[in-house]
Amino acid sequence: MQKIVTEAHEYASRWLGQGAQANYIPELSKLNSDYFGICITNLAGTTYGYGNFNEKYTIQSICKVILLITALQDSGFDHVFSRVGMEPTGDKFNSIIRLETGNSLRPLNPLINAGAIAVTSCINGANSEKKFMRVLDTAKTILNNANVSYDENVFLSEKSTGDRNRALAYMMRSSGVFFDNVEELLDVYFKSCSILVTCAQISRMGAILANNGICPQTGKLLIDPFFVRVVCSLMAVCGLYDASGEFALRVGIPAKSGVGGGILGVVPNRMGVATFSPRLDAKGNSICGLKAMEFLSQAFSLSIY
Amino acid sequence: MQKIVTEAHEYASRWLGQGAQANYIPELSKLNSDYFGICITNLAGTTYGYGNFNEKYTIQSICKVILLITALQDSGFDHVFSRVGMEPTGDKFNSIIRLETGNSLRPLNPLINAGAIAVTSCINGANSEKKFMRVLDTAKTILNNANVSYDENVFLSEKSTGDRNRALAYMMRSSGVFFDNVEELLDVYFKSCSILVTCAQISRMGAILANNGICPQTGKLLIDPFFVRVVCSLMAVCGLYDASGEFALRVGIPAKSGVGGGILGVVPNRMGVATFSPRLDAKGNSICGLKAMEFLSQAFSLSIY
Amino acid sequence: MQKIVTEAHEYASRWLGQGAQANYIPELSKLNSDYFGICITNLAGTTYGYGNFNEKYTIQSICKVILLITALQDSGFDHVFSRVGMEPTGDKFNSIIRLETGNSLRPLNPLINAGAIAVTSCINGANSEKKFMRVLDTAKTILNNANVSYDENVFLSEKSTGDRNRALAYMMRSSGVFFDNVEELLDVYFKSCSILVTCAQISRMGAILANNGICPQTGKLLIDPFFVRVVCSLMAVCGLYDASGEFALRVGIPAKSGVGGGILGVVPNRMGVATFSPRLDAKGNSICGLKAMEFLSQAFSLSIY
Amino acid sequence: MQKIVTEAHEYASRWLGQGAQANYIPELSKLNSDYFGICITNLAGTTYGYGNFNEKYTIQSICKVILLITALQDSGFDHVFSRVGMEPTGDKFNSIIRLETGNSLRPLNPLINAGAIAVTSCINGANSEKKFMRVLDTAKTILNNANVSYDENVFLSEKSTGDRNRALAYMMRSSGVFFDNVEELLDVYFKSCSILVTCAQISRMGAILANNGICPQTGKLLIDPFFVRVVCSLMAVCGLYDASGEFALRVGIPAKSGVGGGILGVVPNRMGVATFSPRLDAKGNSICGLKAMEFLSQAFSLSIY
Repeated sequence: MQKIVTEAHEYASRWLGQGAQANYIPELSKLNSDYFGICITNLAGTTYGYGNFNEKYTIQSICKVILLITALQDSGFDHVFSRVGMEPTGDKFNSIIRLETGNSLRPLNPLINAGAIAVTSCINGANSEKKFMRVLDTAKTILNNANVSYDENVFLSEKSTGDRNRALAYMMRSSGVFFDNVEELLDVYFKSCSILVTCAQISRMGAILANNGICPQTGKLLIDPFFVRVVCSLMAVCGLYDASGEFALRVGIPAKSGVGGGILGVVPNRMGVATFSPRLDAKGNSICGLKAMEFLSQAFSLSIY
Repeated sequence: MQKIVTEAHEYASRWLGQGAQANYIPELSKLNSDYFGICITNLAGTTYGYGNFNEKYTIQSICKVILLITALQDSGFDHVFSRVGMEPTGDKFNSIIRLETGNSLRPLNPLINAGAIAVTSCINGANSEKKFMRVLDTAKTILNNANVSYDENVFLSEKSTGDRNRALAYMMRSSGVFFDNVEELLDVYFKSCSILVTCAQISRMGAILANNGICPQTGKLLIDPFFVRVVCSLMAVCGLYDASGEFALRVGIPAKSGVGGGILGVVPNRMGVATFSPRLDAKGNSICGLKAMEFLSQAFSLSIY
Repeated sequence: MQKIVTEAHEYASRWLGQGAQANYIPELSKLNSDYFGICITNLAGTTYGYGNFNEKYTIQSICKVILLITALQDSGFDHVFSRVGMEPTGDKFNSIIRLETGNSLRPLNPLINAGAIAVTSCINGANSEKKFMRVLDTAKTILNNANVSYDENVFLSEKSTGDRNRALAYMMRSSGVFFDNVEELLDVYFKSCSILVTCAQISRMGAILANNGICPQTGKLLIDPFFVRVVCSLMAVCGLYDASGEFALRVGIPAKSGVGGGILGVVPNRMGVATFSPRLDAKGNSICGLKAMEFLSQAFSLSIY
Repeated sequence: MQKIVTEAHEYASRWLGQGAQANYIPELSKLNSDYFGICITNLAGTTYGYGNFNEKYTIQSICKVILLITALQDSGFDHVFSRVGMEPTGDKFNSIIRLETGNSLRPLNPLINAGAIAVTSCINGANSEKKFMRVLDTAKTILNNANVSYDENVFLSEKSTGDRNRALAYMMRSSGVFFDNVEELLDVYFKSCSILVTCAQISRMGAILANNGICPQTGKLLIDPFFVRVVCSLMAVCGLYDASGEFALRVGIPAKSGVGGGILGVVPNRMGVATFSPRLDAKGNSICGLKAMEFLSQAFSLSIY
């Protein structure tokens, strides 16, 4: 396994100079854009990594998975999906159009920005801090790391450049999707996006999801298996923004990408896979990450289709 | 297996009176709307059916899978996907909007109407008849039935009410997606939609796809395994129109529905599943079919996520 | 003239019970919905009114004309129209779609909500209070009334229900249309919408616009004639939301309506016309007001087309 | 008057090399792109021209005015406006989106392509030839020229490249806006677009419209004054595609442009104005024509606002 991980790194490294880091969140561009790490964790709990797989980066949109799990645990399936749909969109991740034109005015799914904000409104907590504590609790559990924290500078950078997300949130509040204080809600969302993770941690999170919510190391049930299936099926149809279909075809596993450069992959009943490399393609996905995922998919026959 | 198929039929029959047959194609509404059949075919080639699983109905949108396989065989992956994308849409199956507003003016995927028409333009044949012969050849092979034919009345009914598809086709020709004669191209498409199938045949087709293109009965390779993966991954992300995400969550297998009342399901490496019942929900999917698929998914743990 | 105004009132009163007051701003619905006033002011400065033409109501969207005049005076034509277009939209007055899909991300014109907010960002003033003072100054001048004030309760009601406008504002700030503090900017906008006016005052404002910016009573030039033409031509093409075309055809004069129930009409080189009646049709225009305008247009041959 | 027409020509000639001829209809690009003519006709019936004002060109979209007048005469106001709206759009002239998303599925107004096609379906005539004879009759009357004909090559060129218009027509027929044979209907439309006119003729047509339908030369009533007002008010709000607002502001008269390079202007109760120059701006309007219109508007104070 280690050999193939190493080969995947070697193969995908050819694309290392291509693409560009996300620049709409200024703090993000301070990261070394040549970082590239791959990590897989099997259901025995063994982890194989290569490259910068222990380097910290901000989780960004991968946090949408953690937010969804937290919301499902706090408010239940029916309540969460009264505020958000479960369908792919074909639009950009930050699109606002369907909040005006949709049959329902709910966002289409929990993995686009509008949907993740609506999901955040379903998390328990009397105020912004307490809600975020809930998210952090889930993150600590699922990342198997008691020391999970967020990057204050990235958080502040997201907050100061987050007008598009404010537009989404106010649009939803005007339609009655939720009635929360928008700035407090977005603080939870922006802090969640700024959570620091490593490729190794994300691969372990993938392994828990691949193992129906049971931690491979401890055998403890960490997430309700039904919630795992909810999360994995949504990742499969809309986890990579408007490149989800191509990813299904070329790689074929439930996955979620983030503009921080990370990708979380789940191979049900087999393993968790994670990549990290900050340079992105036009759709916001890590270029080396995608190439590594393709290599691993072929080498291990990971596609579930 | 037979027992569970029977139970699934019993369970889903409770919804038998709900919904309505498609009425925009007048001929379709002549079908007995109380028909309900279920059929599964395992990889040993054994078929288990219950109810009206040998009743003939028109394949409708399930033909998009056959059209795509034929086009891939005739023109290759690169050519086909230069004319159509591979992303879900979030729109109705007959939507025209993205042909005007999309970044690319190609339709978003081969399983919506516009995409299937673009795919049809990639099928070999000097004229309409010869192109349709190619489709029928694929259908005969993949349905394991040398006598496959189409329903002339349904074809004429589709042709006479097919203005929306004409609009889609002329819109694409005006953008240079293809340059075929539109009426001839649509004749191929409408005839393909009118192909007569049974639930049993569709479940066998599902088994071939589940078996990486190899016929379970004969062991012969009928479809290139890569094309099988293309088809299955696309069915998984956009096979049930704008209910694909919910189907992924509740059933969790690649599938394709048609307004004739059929659903084709593929459980990779395990079995083909088919249901048939003409009454549809608001999104155009067979109500009893969906309920039966849910039951079977739970009973057999079919979900791939 | 008085006779025809009286007849117009009588004629249009037949529709008095139809339609409904705006209810999305709770305070607005406290107004007596049976009020109905008509007033015209000719270029000699004489005013003819009938019904509740001296009753106070909130100006609502008619303030967009005052905001535009103020912004043109403060920032000039080029700057204002670098932030907003000059084209009709065909969309609802509060639509957000084109801020995402437009070729330019500027709002299409100054008379829809997004456009009026962008225009407000072009008004001078170090803070919210000072900017609003500028608006109030213009209003006092153009309404020929030193005591113009706003309704604090309506303002607070608009502010507390103004999430759709917040969405529009943050969407524009995220695209760089302006960089103002959104809450402060909206305070100016909401206060401007809450300015109290009477039908008589609005008809005098119409007369000034009809008179190329010169006050009929005093002979003083109050508005640059070029700005008058900008305002009148825009009112002609998009002053009545998505009913502007029908109003051009049936009435044929530049006009601006507000959900407070008022309509401002300008007959270039002839007179100002104003109506007030709170019950609105589905597009947000005063039903009796429209009927009165039609009557007056025919009686006086007002149409400029 | 002649002097100012000459000056307008001189002034606007500075922009003579800018822009490009329409190229989507191949035949159109055969025209000498340096042609530039201006013509005005006052209500005494006197015509003042300069440059290539007697050069023939194809009327293109200006025919929408003639189609609308013919349809109003044949089917009446209510019937015509049951098939088409009267509102500006903010979209491109050939947009199809609102035929799917609009509240009503009728096209928004008679001066965009979809609307003009719907209007054509309201013209009397048992077949394509007879319908077109009706159009030609109106054209002969309103252009004051018994020899009006159309350019067969341009017609064939439009027909062979008219797929976008076919898409619009089939889309409307699928929604029940009309039920005509699409190819026959489009033949009428394409032939109407190919009618040959001169600047002088179009200015005389403008004078008739400016004179409430009465021919200045003969004193005969040629068009119902109510239909004249319908046409002029619609030209005012949406006659120049998505540049109608800017034209209202800068020129301020009802007008209609065509991609053949012509512009028809109507100054109610004063004169008809016409320009012709084939090079167009990005929105499809003649560049020299617009400049000449602006010059004449200022020189003669033509703006009605």
